[in-house]
Amino acid sequence: MRIDVLTLFPEMFTGVFGSSILGKANDKGIVSLNTLNFRDFANNKHNTVDDMPYGGGGGMVLKAEPIFGAVEHLLEGSAEARETEAVKPRIILMCPQGKPFSQSLARELSSEKHLIFICGHYEGYDERIREHLVTDELSVGDYVLTGGELPAMVVVDAVVRLLPGVLGNEQSAITDSFSDGLLEYPHYTRPAEFRGWKVPDALLSGHHAEIDKWRRRQSLERTLERRPELLEQAELTAEERNWLRALQAERENTAKNR
Amino acid sequence: MRIDVLTLFPEMFTGVFGSSILGKANDKGIVSLNTLNFRDFANNKHNTVDDMPYGGGGGMVLKAEPIFGAVEHLLEGSAEARETEAVKPRIILMCPQGKPFSQSLARELSSEKHLIFICGHYEGYDERIREHLVTDELSVGDYVLTGGELPAMVVVDAVVRLLPGVLGNEQSAITDSFSDGLLEYPHYTRPAEFRGWKVPDALLSGHHAEIDKWRRRQSLERTLERRPELLEQAELTAEERNWLRALQAERENTAKNR
Repeated sequence: MRIDVLTLFPEMFTGVFGSSILGKANDKGIVSLNTLNFRDFANNKHNTVDDMPYGGGGGMVLKAEPIFGAVEHLLEGSAEARETEAVKPRIILMCPQGKPFSQSLARELSSEKHLIFICGHYEGYDERIREHLVTDELSVGDYVLTGGELPAMVVVDAVVRLLPGVLGNEQSAITDSFSDGLLEYPHYTRPAEFRGWKVPDALLSGHHAEIDKWRRRQSLERTLERRPELLEQAELTAEERNWLRALQAERENTAKNR
Repeated sequence: MRIDVLTLFPEMFTGVFGSSILGKANDKGIVSLNTLNFRDFANNKHNTVDDMPYGGGGGMVLKAEPIFGAVEHLLEGSAEARETEAVKPRIILMCPQGKPFSQSLARELSSEKHLIFICGHYEGYDERIREHLVTDELSVGDYVLTGGELPAMVVVDAVVRLLPGVLGNEQSAITDSFSDGLLEYPHYTRPAEFRGWKVPDALLSGHHAEIDKWRRRQSLERTLERRPELLEQAELTAEERNWLRALQAERENTAKNR
C-alpha cells in the first residue's frame, strides 16, 4: 500500500511514521509512508496557501489550487509508475464534517492500494476541494483539533496495522478481542499480589472453561456499565441476554434502595 | 498547565509536541509538555514492563509496578515544586474501554493544572492500574489503534488549544463555529471561478444578512444530510425546525419518485 499525506507540517509525522509498528511496516516495504507539503504547489509569489473567505467572517480558507496541484502531481507520478493499470486512489479529506471513522472503515481502507490524505490546519477548506477532488471525508471524533494531521495519523495507524504481515500474533491477540463488539475484560499479570491487591481467584484456577466464563461475564458487565449502546449490536446468546437483564435489574434495585 | 505523558515511545511525540500550535504554546510557557519512558521504572534486571496474562491467552499485559513507579515519581516531583498547595493531577489512561472523548471533556480538562497520560502499546493494562491509580479512562473513538500515543496527542491538542493565549483570533474563529452543535457551512476563497466552478452568488452579494442566512441554512442542511443525530442537541429556532422538516419531506419525496 502507498500512503501520501498532504500537509503544511510534514515534520509532525516524522516520529509517528518512523517508530513502532508504522516504522517497521514502512521498513519492511509493506507500506510506503510519504508526506508532501502542498505549499510547494502554491504557484504564487508569496507561496500562500490560504486566503480570506468570500462573504467575510474570521479565519482563513485553504485555496483550491495548491491542493489540486499536489494531488494531481501524485496522480501523475503513480500513473507513470503503473503504466496502464487503473488504480484509483482514495483521496481522503480529514475534517470535522466528515463521516465518523470506525473499525469497519479501517477494514475497508486496508484493502486499497493507494490512500491520499489531505490535512488542513486551523483553516477551512475551499468547498471546491470537497466537491470536485476528494472521494472521502473523515472525522475521528466530535472534538475540535488544530488540524487534520493527528486525525490522519490515527486513520493511518488503524489501517496499516490491519495489513498482512504488520502485526505479529502476540501483538494482535489482545486487540482482536474487540471484534465481538464488547469492551475488553480485565487483564492481570504478575505479581499475584501487588500492594495488597490480588488477582481474582478465577484467573488462578487453571480451569479454562471457568476462566473463559469469567472473562466473558466481565466483558459483558463492563460494556453494560460503560457503553450500554454497544450491547445492541453485539452478538450475544439468549443466556447472556438473560444474565444481563438480571444484572441490570439488580443494579436498579440497589440504586433505588440507597 | 503541566502535561506528562508516560510512554514506551517518547520519540513519537517529538514532531507533534514541537510543531505548530503545541510547539508554540510550549515555547511561550503556557503549557509544559513532557514525556517519560516508564521502562525506566521497571525495577528488574531485563527492564521488562510487560508479562503474560494470568489465566492464559495471547498478548502481553503491562505490569502495575513500572506505571505506579513512574506516576509516583511525577507526583513526588510536583509535590516538591509546589511545597504545600494540594494540586491533584488528573491521571488519564488512554484505552478503548474509556469514556468517549468529547469537546466538553476537552473544556473540562483545560481547567486543570496538571494532566498525566498513560499510554499502553498493543498490550493490555494490569487491572490494578485502572482500579487504584488512574482518575480517568478515555477513548478517542471506536477503532483499534496500536497504542495510546496517538489518542494522547489528540486529547493534548484538543485541550491545549483551549488554553488562554494559545490561539490567535484568526485561528480560533473558524473552529469556534462548531460550538453551536452544527456542522460548518461551506467556505470559499479566491479565485471566484476555479476551473469553471464558481463561488455561490449569495457569498458575493455583500449583503451581510443574506450571507448569514445562507451560511446558517447550509450548516443546517449539511448537518441533516451527514449527522442528523446532532440536530437533536442543537439550539434551533422554531422557524429553523420548520424549514428542516420541509427540507426533509422534500427529500423523501424526491427519493420516492425516482
